[in-house]
Amino acid sequence: MATEIERKFLVRDDSWRAQALPGVPLMQGYLASTPTVTVRARLEGEQGVLTLKGATHGIRRSEYEYPIPAEDAKAMLRELAQTGIIEKTRYRVPCGPQTWELDVFAGDNAGLVVAELELSHEDEPFERPSWLGVEVSDDPRYYNANLARHPFKHW
Amino acid sequence: MATEIERKFLVRDDSWRAQALPGVPLMQGYLASTPTVTVRARLEGEQGVLTLKGATHGIRRSEYEYPIPAEDAKAMLRELAQTGIIEKTRYRVPCGPQTWELDVFAGDNAGLVVAELELSHEDEPFERPSWLGVEVSDDPRYYNANLARHPFKHW
Repeated sequence: MATEIERKFLVRDDSWRAQALPGVPLMQGYLASTPTVTVRARLEGEQGVLTLKGATHGIRRSEYEYPIPAEDAKAMLRELAQTGIIEKTRYRVPCGPQTWELDVFAGDNAGLVVAELELSHEDEPFERPSWLGVEVSDDPRYYNANLARHPFKHW
Repeated sequence: MATEIERKFLVRDDSWRAQALPGVPLMQGYLASTPTVTVRARLEGEQGVLTLKGATHGIRRSEYEYPIPAEDAKAMLRELAQTGIIEKTRYRVPCGPQTWELDVFAGDNAGLVVAELELSHEDEPFERPSWLGVEVSDDPRYYNANLARHPFKHW
């Protein structure tokens, strides 16, 4: 078990692409989403990942993540997902000692780009690159589980 | 992914104990239970197990099962379980070419003993040992997810 501490921002422009590593295509769907737990299946390139996240407390939530066979992830997305499937490409962008993750959404969320930074503790300082926009950590619309249900194109 | 085909019976008497292998203590709880998926954390001796089961169609349902660290299973049962915790001891009882699993419940389900047999196809023949009682495969009260919510002592 890990505790995930994550800050999430919008993105001002495309200048991050100059520093980005090659993107990985992600497909993910939510198999269950209750007030206390979210269960997510993800296909990350050719690797399946099963993730359980506990309730969010501020920017902190418990997270359990396990690699699973890609075939299992595909079958879960096909047969068990209770929401739409999120499609996005994830780019890692090193920035000083930290690495940002930039999610460029496609499908029903096309047009949305979100930058996330995982921190080891809530007060960890971090550099704010020039492309960084407003923080949306506290805005539930940007939770991926909500983007699967109420995609960006309907906002 | 596997498809689970399981038949479930009550038990007439204790004579199965003569053939039983040593029992394994199980603790399990349900992290999410929706019409389409059930997510279960289990502590099986000192091994954690995470299981997702799809909707039941007759005696058949899809099942995904992964070993996880015991510490993760304990934390999930403590922090994420949405129901009571089921405690039981599982005994394996070989019987001809098949092996029955006998669950002797404790805690709020004490007094309940259920015999289960996993089949490789729905019409697979099997021996009916003398201790076998009535079939309850179709009775939702005996689903473990329901026993966690409405335990045997309240029936």
